Amino acid sequence: MTREKLMNEAEFQGRLAESGLDAVVAVSQTNVIYTSGAVISTQTSIPDRLAMTLLPKDGEDAILVCNIERGLVKNESWIEDIRYYREFVRSPMDLLAEVLMERGLARGRIGIEKRYLTAAYHEQLLELLPEARIEGCDDLLEQVRSIKTKGEIDKFGQVNLAAERAIIEAFGETKAGDTDKDLLELILDKVAGLGANDMRFAIVGTGDQSHLAHPEVRSKPLEPGDLIRVDIGADFSGYCSDVARMAVVGEPSDRQKEMYRKHMVVQRGAVEQLKPGVRACDVYQYCVDAYAKAGIDYSLPHVGHGFGLAGHEFPMLQPYNTAELRPDMLICVEPAYLDDKDLGGYQVEDLVLVTDDTPEILTTYSNTDGLFVIE
Amino acid sequence: MTREKLMNEAEFQGRLAESGLDAVVAVSQTNVIYTSGAVISTQTSIPDRLAMTLLPKDGEDAILVCNIERGLVKNESWIEDIRYYREFVRSPMDLLAEVLMERGLARGRIGIEKRYLTAAYHEQLLELLPEARIEGCDDLLEQVRSIKTKGEIDKFGQVNLAAERAIIEAFGETKAGDTDKDLLELILDKVAGLGANDMRFAIVGTGDQSHLAHPEVRSKPLEPGDLIRVDIGADFSGYCSDVARMAVVGEPSDRQKEMYRKHMVVQRGAVEQLKPGVRACDVYQYCVDAYAKAGIDYSLPHVGHGFGLAGHEFPMLQPYNTAELRPDMLICVEPAYLDDKDLGGYQVEDLVLVTDDTPEILTTYSNTDGLFVIE
Repeated sequence: MTREKLMNEAEFQGRLAESGLDAVVAVSQTNVIYTSGAVISTQTSIPDRLAMTLLPKDGEDAILVCNIERGLVKNESWIEDIRYYREFVRSPMDLLAEVLMERGLARGRIGIEKRYLTAAYHEQLLELLPEARIEGCDDLLEQVRSIKTKGEIDKFGQVNLAAERAIIEAFGETKAGDTDKDLLELILDKVAGLGANDMRFAIVGTGDQSHLAHPEVRSKPLEPGDLIRVDIGADFSGYCSDVARMAVVGEPSDRQKEMYRKHMVVQRGAVEQLKPGVRACDVYQYCVDAYAKAGIDYSLPHVGHGFGLAGHEFPMLQPYNTAELRPDMLICVEPAYLDDKDLGGYQVEDLVLVTDDTPEILTTYSNTDGLFVIE
Repeated sequence: MTREKLMNEAEFQGRLAESGLDAVVAVSQTNVIYTSGAVISTQTSIPDRLAMTLLPKDGEDAILVCNIERGLVKNESWIEDIRYYREFVRSPMDLLAEVLMERGLARGRIGIEKRYLTAAYHEQLLELLPEARIEGCDDLLEQVRSIKTKGEIDKFGQVNLAAERAIIEAFGETKAGDTDKDLLELILDKVAGLGANDMRFAIVGTGDQSHLAHPEVRSKPLEPGDLIRVDIGADFSGYCSDVARMAVVGEPSDRQKEMYRKHMVVQRGAVEQLKPGVRACDVYQYCVDAYAKAGIDYSLPHVGHGFGLAGHEFPMLQPYNTAELRPDMLICVEPAYLDDKDLGGYQVEDLVLVTDDTPEILTTYSNTDGLFVIE
């Protein structure tokens, strides 16, 4: 079934005109999905077997893939000009050069994702098209993708809300004495029941592991006083969540309540910063300052990130990114305190839509005012 | 815990001397694991965040990673010279250039994996080291990796034997009326019980899906007469299996028996071809001819592949690969017939060690003379 076209055409055409490029060639899995609808899993598992979309300024789009992907691309993509190369027989660059020449672009300015294309393929392309100007177009595509369409906002909102719901429902059915593994399996069942078909990542940190970025699940029973930190990427047919929630086993201690409260003041404050014109680095600095006020040093490299097909996307909320926020950006806000085994790890991650006015939190299934209590 | 060094040092030193390179820089996840022992998962999930090993002709090896991977690399790698860059602050290429200059290689001949390094990083490196000669070393590393050490042969043999055993035990506990999903879950339980900590891929094609390369599991009950084709990549701490077995529900029909027999004649014949000096393309042609004798057209792009950390490795048994087999290569032999929904899919995949003499099948847990019968 052809996938719904959610790409931001207006933004793309605007950026393309501004760039002066004659065509853009997408080679990363994310941008091939974005610009064609085709989800080609071997793009990451077999890097030599390139799939590409050609988006010319004039004329129709084309998709260039290994002949093995014939059926999949016909089923999933809305692009009608589909070109194939046979693996081991012909280089994908050879086919790309052919199609570019056919489109009269042998001397054109061609943008290609240089942060994904390998040096070997790049050198081949330069040899095959000695008169073309081959330039990077990574920034162009990531900027286009950062401004979401209505369809994307709905889709990513649904997906993250479902993932949040799965976590909270799993918390609700968990008891002291169950293990971290039981909790993980319950979450897997819940997201599957809500329509997810895969899990890209699932962080379940409990007790003396709640502060670890990527704890290993160890089948350890939950004990009163244990903090629980869950962060999951549940994949709903190519659209993946990124949402984090916390719980505590039994009544939280005063110290836990206090740390959680301090943390949520920063997180909610950060959400409020997400307005058009505010720079990504300013949101980072806001969190550093707000934590400092609460007596906490912030040590992580970012406090959140643009969110879309790629998971972490432009704009990263990191100290060196001066990009300004714009309406219709989706941002995962996740300042986190993961420094101390004894204190435990504190992280609540929400998906937020930047609007002309007040930022809108899309992950609203649960109430995050206090720690969720597991009996 | 530092991982055991299984890399083929003798082969590497020989190839390095032959190449005339002053140093080799590994950038792919596979070659970083191979040359350092460190399994850095973000190498594939966050492609910008490079991890590299520097293997100079003279002097000690170094590993260059993002500071976030500090703890992991110290734990897992045997390399003692560990260098860090801070993400968003400094490009990994900048650190690489610094270390190469420190080693007196600013004007050296540097081999780097151009089939993995991106064009953007490659251009940065060329600017940072204008007097160095930067060359591709992909072939060198894949050839080194193709000749396995005793440690690797033992490890990959154990892993594939365990995966085979899991499949056969799961077949033995499956009954007509169970679903393809039940079978998959049983296999997952079995491999986990045998020590696997992840599943990279799991193909379970049953009934009218046994011929599909990548069937979707659909919770359909197994019926008498259904063919079952299973091919799994079970990951044992970075060492992953690739083994396929078949079964049939109830007594096989005469046609199924005949097809299986014909198929296994080709598969066993192909195994016998795996002797030093035989070319990869000759093994492919052998299968095409042997199938033709049985009245079957062969349509798949390869009949097997070198096997190691990367799964599919050099040498691919494909029609254009004139590379010669050598002792201590591990080869997955998997000619397959997947053309016809009514006939069903036939594939048995074994791991084979090339020796000076008779090739040795390492996946010997089960008897593949006839189809495994599920009651």
